[in-house]
Amino acid sequence: MIYADNAATTKMSETAVKAMLEVINDNYGNPSSLYSIGQKAKEALEEARADIAGVIGAKPAEILFTSGGSEADNQAIISAAKTGEAAGKRHIISTKIEHHAVLHTLKKLEKEGFEVTLLEVNGDGLVTPEAVRDAIREDTCLVSVMYANNEIGTIEPIREIGAICREKKVPFHVDAVQAIGHIPVNVEEDNIDMLSSSAHKFHGPKGVGFLYVKKGIRLFNLIEGGAQEKGKRAGTENVPGIVAAAAALKEAVANMDKNAAYLTEKREKLIAGLKEISHSALNGHPVKRLPGNVNFCFEGIEGESLLLLLDDKGIQASSGSACTSGSLDPSHVLLAIGRVHDVAHGSLRLSIAEDITDADVDYIIKSVKEVVEYLRGFSPVWRDLVAGKSQFIL
Amino acid sequence: MIYADNAATTKMSETAVKAMLEVINDNYGNPSSLYSIGQKAKEALEEARADIAGVIGAKPAEILFTSGGSEADNQAIISAAKTGEAAGKRHIISTKIEHHAVLHTLKKLEKEGFEVTLLEVNGDGLVTPEAVRDAIREDTCLVSVMYANNEIGTIEPIREIGAICREKKVPFHVDAVQAIGHIPVNVEEDNIDMLSSSAHKFHGPKGVGFLYVKKGIRLFNLIEGGAQEKGKRAGTENVPGIVAAAAALKEAVANMDKNAAYLTEKREKLIAGLKEISHSALNGHPVKRLPGNVNFCFEGIEGESLLLLLDDKGIQASSGSACTSGSLDPSHVLLAIGRVHDVAHGSLRLSIAEDITDADVDYIIKSVKEVVEYLRGFSPVWRDLVAGKSQFIL
Repeated sequence: MIYADNAATTKMSETAVKAMLEVINDNYGNPSSLYSIGQKAKEALEEARADIAGVIGAKPAEILFTSGGSEADNQAIISAAKTGEAAGKRHIISTKIEHHAVLHTLKKLEKEGFEVTLLEVNGDGLVTPEAVRDAIREDTCLVSVMYANNEIGTIEPIREIGAICREKKVPFHVDAVQAIGHIPVNVEEDNIDMLSSSAHKFHGPKGVGFLYVKKGIRLFNLIEGGAQEKGKRAGTENVPGIVAAAAALKEAVANMDKNAAYLTEKREKLIAGLKEISHSALNGHPVKRLPGNVNFCFEGIEGESLLLLLDDKGIQASSGSACTSGSLDPSHVLLAIGRVHDVAHGSLRLSIAEDITDADVDYIIKSVKEVVEYLRGFSPVWRDLVAGKSQFIL
Repeated sequence: MIYADNAATTKMSETAVKAMLEVINDNYGNPSSLYSIGQKAKEALEEARADIAGVIGAKPAEILFTSGGSEADNQAIISAAKTGEAAGKRHIISTKIEHHAVLHTLKKLEKEGFEVTLLEVNGDGLVTPEAVRDAIREDTCLVSVMYANNEIGTIEPIREIGAICREKKVPFHVDAVQAIGHIPVNVEEDNIDMLSSSAHKFHGPKGVGFLYVKKGIRLFNLIEGGAQEKGKRAGTENVPGIVAAAAALKEAVANMDKNAAYLTEKREKLIAGLKEISHSALNGHPVKRLPGNVNFCFEGIEGESLLLLLDDKGIQASSGSACTSGSLDPSHVLLAIGRVHDVAHGSLRLSIAEDITDADVDYIIKSVKEVVEYLRGFSPVWRDLVAGKSQFIL
C-alpha cells in the first residue's frame, strides 16, 4: 500500500507513539492535582509547551493546547471578532481558499452581523499582500490567511501580509495546519499574532492541536469550565497526546530540511510524470508549494472513480479535502483558482510522506496514467471532447 | 504508590491502550476519506459509536464524539439555550453542586441575558425532584443536573427528575461524567435528553468524550468546519481515542457489578476507619453514593497540607475537584452541603479504583489518622478548639 493522503492525516511516528505510551503508563495523573504524579504530568505538559513554542519562535505562555486545528481556528477567529466587536470593528478579511474551519466560522459571524471580505487568489492560488492592504478598513478587526493550502499546496506570502497587518495594526491569524512541521514557520519573523496547528498533520496524534496567541491578544473561551490552560480552555489536559505532539513536532523539525529536499524531489518527479497525461494540469503554484503536495486535474474524468480505482491498485489518495468528501460540490479551492466545475471534479491530490520510494513514485505515475486512460474510455464527456463536440479546456 | 484520585483521572486500561495502538498502527486513515484505509477507520468509528450507544440505551445516531466532558457539557447547554431563545424561553434550572463546565457555561449565558436558577441541595448533596418541579416555569428551556457529584459522590435522583422534565416538556441534560462506566445509566429509562461523558474517567483516554443527544433535540456547533459528526462537530475524528474509549467502556460495564460490589466494600471500610478520627465527618450521601468515592472533612486542619503529607506517604488523593486546585476558594460543593468555610478547607477526597487492596485500605486509614493528628498538633485553630476558645462544629 502506498499511503499518499498525508494532508488528510498522517501515521503517528514511532517517536510520538513511544512518548505517548510513556505518559499513559507512568505519568497518568491529572496535571491540575497537587500530588507528585499530578505534578509530574504538569511538568511533562509544560515541557511540551516549551518545546512547541521553541519550534515556532513563541514563548511557552503563548501556546494554548486544543483538541485540534479546527478548534484552534474557531477560537482564534471568534476571539478576534469579539475583541473587534467591543471596539466597534466588525469587518474581517480572509481568502476564498481557506479551510472550512475558517470559512464556516466566518459564515457564522456573518449571520451575527460581521462583514467578511474573502479575497480572490490568482491561478496559482496565491493571495497578494497588496490585496490584503487594499481590503483593510478602519473597522477591520482580523485578517486570517492560511500558511499553505491543504488542497493545492500553495504557500502564501505570510510574512509580507503580516507586515502589512502590523503596519495597519490589525490582528493577523494564520491557519498553519498544513505548514507546521513541514516548512519553516516563525511567528516573530512572519509577523503572526495567532496561529493554528494540528498534530496529526505532522505524524503526531489525532485530537491534539495548539493555538499560538501573541502576548497582549485577548482570547475568549470556546469551552468553559475548569481553570486549565490559564482559564482559556477547560477540560482535563490530554497530556499523553500533547507530549506526543511535541515529540512528533521536534522530530519533524529536526529532519525538516532533509525531508523537504527529499519530498520536493519526489514531488517534481510525480508532477513531471503526471504532466505527460494529455489534457492534465497541475493545480497550485509550481514552486511556492508544500514539499509533499501534488494536485492535478484531468479533463473528462470524475475524481471519485479515479480514487476508487487507485485504491484498488493500493494507492490511497484524495480528491479535494477529506473534510468535504461526501459532498457533491466541487472543491471551493479549485473553483477559486479558476477551474471550471467539470474540470474541478476530475482532481487528484497526492500528499506524500518521507516513506515514499522512487519505486512508489514510478508505480503511482504508471497507475494514474492507466486509470485515467481507462476512465476516459468510458467517459461520454471525453468522447465528446475527442470528437470535437465540446471544447478542451486544459 | 496508592493512586486514589480516580475521580480526577484514571489510568488507561490495558484493553483500551491495546485498542488505541491497533488503530494508530494499522488503521490511521482519515474516516472522511474514500479509500479503503479511510473506510476501515470509518467502520471502527461507527462500531465504537454503536458500542457506546448500546451501553447507555441510546441509538448510534444519538452519540456525538467530543474532546471530553467539558466540551460535551458546553455544547449541550449552549444548544438548549439557543433553541430556547428562539422560542422566547430564557430560563435554565441547574444545581449549586454542578461541575464548573456546567456552572461556568451558565454564568456565560447569564451575561447574555439568560436567567439561571441554581437549586439548593440537602446536607447529603441531594437535589429533590420536587425542587425541580417547583422551579420549572413557562420559559424554562433546560434542566441540567449531574448524575453523580464529582467531589462528594452523591448520586442524584435522575430518573425522577427526568420524569418531571418529560411531563413538563423541558429538555433534560445530565452531566454523567462521574457515573458512566461506574453505575448503571440508561438514557431511555432515566428520561434523559442529553448526557455528557468523558472517557478518562472510566479508564479510557484523555481528550475523548461524548454527548448523547436524543433524536429530535437540536444541536448547535461549538466548533465549525468540516462535516464530521453529521456537521455538528468539526475536526478530524480522533479514531484511536474513540475506539479506546469504547473498549474501556465496554470493559467497565462488563465488570460493573463486580467492581461496584468490591469498591463499595472497600469504601465502607475506609469510611468506617476514617470516622474513628475525632471531629471528622463524611461528606455526601451515606448510601446513594458512587462506589469508589470517599470524602471527609477534618476539623482544624487544612486540606492542602493533608494532601502533601499523604503524597509523602505514597497516597495520591485530592481535596475538592482537580479542576479548581490552585484556587484558594473552598469547594462550592462542600459549601452547598452546609460545611462552613473553615471546615470545607479541611477536606479529603479518596476516589479508589479496582486495583485497591485491603492492605491499601488499612494503610490509607492509618496514614490519614497519623497525618491528621500530626497537622492538628501544629494547628492554632485546633488548639483553640481543644482549649474551648472556639466551638467544634463537626
